Amino acid sequence: MGTYVVWIVSVLAVAVADGSREKREGLSLEPGNWPSCQSGAAAPRTRVDTRDRVAVLRQYFATAGIQAYLVPSEDAHQSEYPSGYDKRRGYISGFTGSAGFAVVTIDKQALWTDGRYFLEAEDSLDCNWILMRQRETGVPTMVEWLKTQLSSGNRLGASPFLVSSATWKTYSDDLKKAGLLLVPVENELIDTFWQTGNGRPPQPDTAINALQIQFAGVSWQDKVNNMRTKMTAEGTDMLAVTALDETAWLFNLRASDIDYNPFFLSYAIIDKNTTTLYILNHTLKLTSQPTDNGTMMNLAAHLNTNDNGTCTGRADMCVEVKLYDQNLVKTDVNVRAAFSNKVWLGYSCNQAIYSAVPEGKILQKNTPIATTKTKKNPAEVEGMKKSHIRDAVALISFLEKLEREVKAGQPWTELSAANDLKTYRYAQQFNRGLSFTTISSSGSNGAIIHYSPSNMTDKKITTSEVYLLDSGGQYLDGTTDVTRTFHFGTPTAYQKECYTRVLMAHINLFQAIWQKGVYGREIDAFARAPLWDVGLVYRHGTGHGIGMFLSVHEGPGRISLAHDLFAQDNPLDEFQFFSDEPGYYEAGQFGMRLENIVMVKNATTKYRFPGAEFLTFEHVTLVPYAHNLIDYDLLSEKQINYLNAYNNLIREKVGPELKKQGRDAAYEWMMQKTEEYTRKTTSSVSSLTGCLPFVIFVLSVVQTL
Amino acid sequence: MGTYVVWIVSVLAVAVADGSREKREGLSLEPGNWPSCQSGAAAPRTRVDTRDRVAVLRQYFATAGIQAYLVPSEDAHQSEYPSGYDKRRGYISGFTGSAGFAVVTIDKQALWTDGRYFLEAEDSLDCNWILMRQRETGVPTMVEWLKTQLSSGNRLGASPFLVSSATWKTYSDDLKKAGLLLVPVENELIDTFWQTGNGRPPQPDTAINALQIQFAGVSWQDKVNNMRTKMTAEGTDMLAVTALDETAWLFNLRASDIDYNPFFLSYAIIDKNTTTLYILNHTLKLTSQPTDNGTMMNLAAHLNTNDNGTCTGRADMCVEVKLYDQNLVKTDVNVRAAFSNKVWLGYSCNQAIYSAVPEGKILQKNTPIATTKTKKNPAEVEGMKKSHIRDAVALISFLEKLEREVKAGQPWTELSAANDLKTYRYAQQFNRGLSFTTISSSGSNGAIIHYSPSNMTDKKITTSEVYLLDSGGQYLDGTTDVTRTFHFGTPTAYQKECYTRVLMAHINLFQAIWQKGVYGREIDAFARAPLWDVGLVYRHGTGHGIGMFLSVHEGPGRISLAHDLFAQDNPLDEFQFFSDEPGYYEAGQFGMRLENIVMVKNATTKYRFPGAEFLTFEHVTLVPYAHNLIDYDLLSEKQINYLNAYNNLIREKVGPELKKQGRDAAYEWMMQKTEEYTRKTTSSVSSLTGCLPFVIFVLSVVQTL
Repeated sequence: MGTYVVWIVSVLAVAVADGSREKREGLSLEPGNWPSCQSGAAAPRTRVDTRDRVAVLRQYFATAGIQAYLVPSEDAHQSEYPSGYDKRRGYISGFTGSAGFAVVTIDKQALWTDGRYFLEAEDSLDCNWILMRQRETGVPTMVEWLKTQLSSGNRLGASPFLVSSATWKTYSDDLKKAGLLLVPVENELIDTFWQTGNGRPPQPDTAINALQIQFAGVSWQDKVNNMRTKMTAEGTDMLAVTALDETAWLFNLRASDIDYNPFFLSYAIIDKNTTTLYILNHTLKLTSQPTDNGTMMNLAAHLNTNDNGTCTGRADMCVEVKLYDQNLVKTDVNVRAAFSNKVWLGYSCNQAIYSAVPEGKILQKNTPIATTKTKKNPAEVEGMKKSHIRDAVALISFLEKLEREVKAGQPWTELSAANDLKTYRYAQQFNRGLSFTTISSSGSNGAIIHYSPSNMTDKKITTSEVYLLDSGGQYLDGTTDVTRTFHFGTPTAYQKECYTRVLMAHINLFQAIWQKGVYGREIDAFARAPLWDVGLVYRHGTGHGIGMFLSVHEGPGRISLAHDLFAQDNPLDEFQFFSDEPGYYEAGQFGMRLENIVMVKNATTKYRFPGAEFLTFEHVTLVPYAHNLIDYDLLSEKQINYLNAYNNLIREKVGPELKKQGRDAAYEWMMQKTEEYTRKTTSSVSSLTGCLPFVIFVLSVVQTL
Repeated sequence: MGTYVVWIVSVLAVAVADGSREKREGLSLEPGNWPSCQSGAAAPRTRVDTRDRVAVLRQYFATAGIQAYLVPSEDAHQSEYPSGYDKRRGYISGFTGSAGFAVVTIDKQALWTDGRYFLEAEDSLDCNWILMRQRETGVPTMVEWLKTQLSSGNRLGASPFLVSSATWKTYSDDLKKAGLLLVPVENELIDTFWQTGNGRPPQPDTAINALQIQFAGVSWQDKVNNMRTKMTAEGTDMLAVTALDETAWLFNLRASDIDYNPFFLSYAIIDKNTTTLYILNHTLKLTSQPTDNGTMMNLAAHLNTNDNGTCTGRADMCVEVKLYDQNLVKTDVNVRAAFSNKVWLGYSCNQAIYSAVPEGKILQKNTPIATTKTKKNPAEVEGMKKSHIRDAVALISFLEKLEREVKAGQPWTELSAANDLKTYRYAQQFNRGLSFTTISSSGSNGAIIHYSPSNMTDKKITTSEVYLLDSGGQYLDGTTDVTRTFHFGTPTAYQKECYTRVLMAHINLFQAIWQKGVYGREIDAFARAPLWDVGLVYRHGTGHGIGMFLSVHEGPGRISLAHDLFAQDNPLDEFQFFSDEPGYYEAGQFGMRLENIVMVKNATTKYRFPGAEFLTFEHVTLVPYAHNLIDYDLLSEKQINYLNAYNNLIREKVGPELKKQGRDAAYEWMMQKTEEYTRKTTSSVSSLTGCLPFVIFVLSVVQTL
């Protein structure tokens, strides 16, 4: 899925050849260092005047004892999608892109973001801001810049809740070398004056529902006990859970505090005997009746607590529920750490929680929740496969209509397509909305990898341009994420070659067999090879993990040629689900991407090296490709076999469901798109030609008789 | 080449699936924890009784103020091959394997080594030693073990000259956590009592010769000035050179202090204006006449110094030469660092030199010498190619004789083959010996990856077993490293499949095209795929860098699926030379490996993504493969094209040189081994069969006339 893909870009861009980075020359480091701030230039209508906000922020510097303040884009849980309430950087700067951070000093304000967001930033920032184009020549890092702005001994403040412990350490060390200090500001400054009264969205506080065991597969009690076993194995007796998808998975709970992610603001602490969960309005939530028809019981009953959150019954069989309050959690972690020998913290742990544990007592690595969650249990595996079949029905039904009507010249646009597709997913059993903002892009818009349509950019879908559709849904029994690329008219030979090479990349990765122990970054090149062979590249990772009715992007582990090492990466393993999504993007022309969700499974091989085990992929996504974009002559026999086998699988798995739902037109469309391909072997021809001399000889013999 | 390959194994073994590690159950952690130390067992004849040595070592503990002492296997320059003089760990323990370290406490002594050396260690250690089998279940790390042996506050001593700064930091941090201390022992303890008198080899002190500019390509003056430019670019004004191949390359000097490596014990310091070189017996060496006929002038003249090493003429055009004395060098570094802003140190820098520079002034990363040296200059590229042609003549001439005589039943062994092959290399122009110990292994010995034949293991080369030959030479204009595998009789179908898949791996890597910026570890899997596909693996890297008349293993950069990140790795780049050496090893049966040296070059591609550049490989090694071991049906058209093109290249490049040297038999052998292969297309056959019905029809028609 796109957004994540884009996230990978920022990772890749660091190492990929310089040339592949956007270059802009002669840019100053003064306020308003972009074209629309030059005299005479018209102000973009999306520009936000943040002078007053910044002025108010500065008023707090003195009491906080700081000379500069850092406003990151993350929330306290390092969520990929923070809620509107947590978009502090967006409020203070006016720039709402997903990546970037703002730093305000006594007399200057600067925003750092990467190449994907330069234009968006120029259209949102007022001209008092300095735009720091990350990784452009001559653009300083935050620390380099602060060195020129602050004097020795000066202090940069930041909320320790909004910065991960790892990032905090890096900043802190770099600043120290420059004679500067990073200091925690316990009460986040923007929160002190940005109130829901003046336009701040309220803190998300949606109902929390229990996920039925038929979908979760394992009870939260068994999960918690399993975590305790793993904690002991690592010599730890306490685990602080700070990632929202981890609390959701651990307790088999779902909500909708955050767009597209069925999460709820929370922390959890597990120790030898007790389990504590921190949520907003806990007493209200415990007693309220389930709002979700997938839920049998209310929260208190599910967690074996009474109405005020106190445990009932055996300690290891119930969860103490307390109020979600940052400082309360921090205090509890601090107090309970004192009674622990070793405390396990994940990589997303924020600095506030991290600093609440004595350094010597910390084990920081992927939590046992993260590493267990990534390997789906049998019920989750079954759910993922079933939900993908229903999701395929939705998508195929929509595609049949879209192709028919676009070809008939009816007026479809990127937005109308995205909106109409929604209704098809909503209609499917167990659907709980979408798993991310649909990427519906026509022609040149497709080349903007992180594009999603808006009223300002909406473009027609026609028979003369390439159309890219990257979308997914949330279901009680799974999360989906699928990308297909089409041309509803006649593609050029070049477009066909590009699509076919993306398809070859997509197939090569799927057909890979590798030794257990190998990392995703070590097989990513299998996918890139067919494009590299002709000098083409895509500047994003090939695959990301995906949750089961959780985040559409789930670590640890990814299939990404990110030249640096992800500390949190794990080797690929059985029952992990990944996307397989190579692409190709030609600026101003088109974007192409093919994305399937695939599952890692054990491979059976002709031989077996002593002690070695082998893994490969299995299909989960079942949606036809675009035949008119395939140049079959470029495909190997092995790749053609993939196509035929995949098409058969679609007919076998999705066909019945389409019939069951009475979607006859969609069924016919699917049948037509999954016809078997057989290569015209020239032998039959050649054999005839080869025959002529022989025939002539025979005839001559006959003649002579 | 083998040894390196083995080095990679130790890297890989860490991450490769547990199953692939050698397992041994029920082993104690008591002295003599191996079979031949059990009562009644016969002592191996290679066992060395080190009780007295260890006893003497312990006598120095009190004065050194330590309770334990670490004896590493490295020398002060972290050389891959330390000289006999530096094999302290071998002396104190009796174990002479290339990997491992010894720790002696007041009452115990333990040796850590990895799976490759368990048996060798059991045959060399006396029964007072504890053998620590690294990465075996239940075997503690050094720190874990010391925790159980020492009490809080105790001190582990080690010579800071023999431990790299990185390793020192790791040990130091881990020990600190355990309440123990790592303390530098400035005067290495074993040196105090292990004297050349009692069997210690003398410190190597061979003549130093200047390498002619026709081979070096760039004068040392230009190199030094180039280094200064790069130092400035990194904000450094001083560079301490500690790696022996770096001083040899920088000053265009060669010697033979270390087996197979044309190096000399040395340090160098470069700052803004001056250059200092530290060598043994410097005054004698400066004035002595060149011993090498490749040399025109003596050392003083070459370095523009007078006979006592004082600079003559412009400071940046001459080298001050001083005595190689560890403490002198350390003092000089310390004094000169005081006058510098930032000091550049390489990764191989030992802790003594590292600690001589104030922490805040250190930039530690690959030295500009390492990163410049790896990209060969035009003269070096030409020399590497030419020397490989002469090396091919030597190898081909030997192979012709070996194959002929083995087939004729004459008595060849691994050793006699290795020794005879030497003479062929020595006979070639510019030869300066071998580049590593020849790996000549027959049948089951081939499965021991790091095997080299000895009188105790020497095995016959017959027509009934696989024969693996990995060898290389040093030349004034290049360093070679080539591996070929043969069967002089009739291989089994399984042997043919294994060889062919190794060949496919070898070809796949060579044919790869990748985007500039990619690391070797990211394309290594291209080579493994053909083996993974059928469940086979090789537990070593696919390729290593190689020097020009320098080390046969040269960093930075390698092609190795080492799951962890090498800090010192660099992306693959133009004019770097690597080995391409996949293999397959079946314990107790055979070993197969194919190794060519290849050069990275720019790739021309059908299209070119804006800003992206592409790289691929070019042939350097030119020696035929073993046709009788190839199952051509397994090869793709693309792979067969590789073979035909490669064979043509051998004929074109090596043919004339064989003729010129009058090696007619070898020429015929080469011609026969490089015949073009054309796949029998079944069409001709099928066309005839396809004809029959047609012919019958025609005949019937004719009949009816």
